Amino acid sequence: MKKLINDPARVVDESLEGFGQAHADLVAVHTDPNFVTRAGGAKPGKVGLVSGGGSGHEPLHAGFVGLGMLDAAVPGAVFTSPTPDAIAPATTAADGGAGVLHIVKNYTGDVLNFETAAELADAEGIEVKAVVVNDDVAVEDSLYTAGRRGVAGTVAVEKIAGASAERGDDLATVAAIAEKVNKNVRSMGVALTACTVPHAGKPSFDLDDTEIEIGIGIHGEPGRRRIPVAPADEITEMLTNAVLDDLGLGSGEQALLLVNGMGGTPASELYIVYRAARKLIEARGATVSRSLVGNYVTSLEMQGCSVTVLRLDDELTALWDAPVHTPALRW
Amino acid sequence: MKKLINDPARVVDESLEGFGQAHADLVAVHTDPNFVTRAGGAKPGKVGLVSGGGSGHEPLHAGFVGLGMLDAAVPGAVFTSPTPDAIAPATTAADGGAGVLHIVKNYTGDVLNFETAAELADAEGIEVKAVVVNDDVAVEDSLYTAGRRGVAGTVAVEKIAGASAERGDDLATVAAIAEKVNKNVRSMGVALTACTVPHAGKPSFDLDDTEIEIGIGIHGEPGRRRIPVAPADEITEMLTNAVLDDLGLGSGEQALLLVNGMGGTPASELYIVYRAARKLIEARGATVSRSLVGNYVTSLEMQGCSVTVLRLDDELTALWDAPVHTPALRW
Repeated sequence: MKKLINDPARVVDESLEGFGQAHADLVAVHTDPNFVTRAGGAKPGKVGLVSGGGSGHEPLHAGFVGLGMLDAAVPGAVFTSPTPDAIAPATTAADGGAGVLHIVKNYTGDVLNFETAAELADAEGIEVKAVVVNDDVAVEDSLYTAGRRGVAGTVAVEKIAGASAERGDDLATVAAIAEKVNKNVRSMGVALTACTVPHAGKPSFDLDDTEIEIGIGIHGEPGRRRIPVAPADEITEMLTNAVLDDLGLGSGEQALLLVNGMGGTPASELYIVYRAARKLIEARGATVSRSLVGNYVTSLEMQGCSVTVLRLDDELTALWDAPVHTPALRW
Repeated sequence: MKKLINDPARVVDESLEGFGQAHADLVAVHTDPNFVTRAGGAKPGKVGLVSGGGSGHEPLHAGFVGLGMLDAAVPGAVFTSPTPDAIAPATTAADGGAGVLHIVKNYTGDVLNFETAAELADAEGIEVKAVVVNDDVAVEDSLYTAGRRGVAGTVAVEKIAGASAERGDDLATVAAIAEKVNKNVRSMGVALTACTVPHAGKPSFDLDDTEIEIGIGIHGEPGRRRIPVAPADEITEMLTNAVLDDLGLGSGEQALLLVNGMGGTPASELYIVYRAARKLIEARGATVSRSLVGNYVTSLEMQGCSVTVLRLDDELTALWDAPVHTPALRW
């Protein structure tokens, strides 16, 4: 295992320490338990947004804390759900008196631990609602999931619900908008290589030099099938058509296209995939009116990518375009 | 070779096509020959900034075209200098009547081709000055270089000279500021793995599972030495102390610290390195007053990073802080 780390047991703590120092103008890192809040703390009267999950998917979630997006993020150990005792104080810290929305990726541990934390917050008099993101069309049920997994569509949920909260919407409205994004977003990924969890010290799964896995999960959970290495346009077609079929994106509709890198893929390759995915959307008579290309929901150093399509209407487009000022997303 | 590509010969063209589509609000991609300009074209009366180099280092340079940074970028084939017949029309396109600054990384082919293009532009009546960036302290002379190589310090030169041009400075002033940045910036990198140029089809060099290369070049050129895998803090010390010794950063001074990913390194590891590098700067009594952490000057899917330190004064800090609106850098 070659990694730029010191002690596998200290990866998350040391990384958060650097993250907090590098972005001290935007975020504050709390330790023991670990969570990240906006530098200025909760905004009175604003609905608070809290997300979190296992580490190893950076910049998700801590990279999205800031104006127009999250109020707090809770990083667990690598590929391990954060515990309720970390989610609860993050929820308290994010509460500005208007309640808190939990944005949870659909993994059994995450869902359970966020629910427990919500009960703890409720006992403190904080109203909490939750949206469970389940955008991955690859498989029903999976290693750590009942139902579909939550993957890169989470970025769209966090961005758009964040803009809703920032403009002063109440908790029911912010939650409804988050649900609306989740209902209209679909993703599917591919792995060219596995990744190595630091404390495991060896790759999460085996993939030989001539094969790739279509429909991979962001923790290396099995996808739909393994196939021999294929041209980018063919791979993109498998991912994008599965996404578009499931979403039912039709002629005349508008979409956000997110091509997300898994961590170890050069930007040049992501743009090649973007170009192919865009063609497929246009071939159905729909329009790509917003785009995002880069590493947003990663799997450590895995090579591969995912394609995410979000159906846009005027409301979602305006919220997507609203200002955002976080370490990893800014306009 | 596993890559998300179609035809190795079409990697740059297809990637640029996707890049232009995804960022059509910011840039325009020109083909045959390939170069990238701001979407709005040259700004009358403003000094134009043009950079370029081999592809495979994305987001450098095309990702830095936009308000407050470059006016045009010229991507060559992967790891291959762009030709004068591409640099010349990019220079013409970037000229707003106030002359053009070429920002050139110090590789023999790049320097030669930019010089030839400058002569072609001069024949058209466009005044061109050039700054040659040579921030890599690892080695004197190298595979493709007489003198020191130009690496991640280029981002600082492009950002700060870009801000100078944007505020209306004349060509001599913009060139002097670019030179000032180059004189005050130093970098050194490390490779954990090699990378594979698409048309070569195999890794540029061999590095076994237990060793890393200190002082690596961004094309895999040899560095200072190979050592067994070591903890991140030790590796960071080798890079940062070499940079700080050469720069002579002293007590009471302020610095920008850039920890740059080589393309295949998770963000979490870059923050671990950032944290260690920052401690070393502070141990010398200097202050890290500005920070940048991420993939900015990459080597395809290489795992590794570089540490860049720029000595800041009030002038450079203000220019660094000035607005920038490009695909890869935005504030």
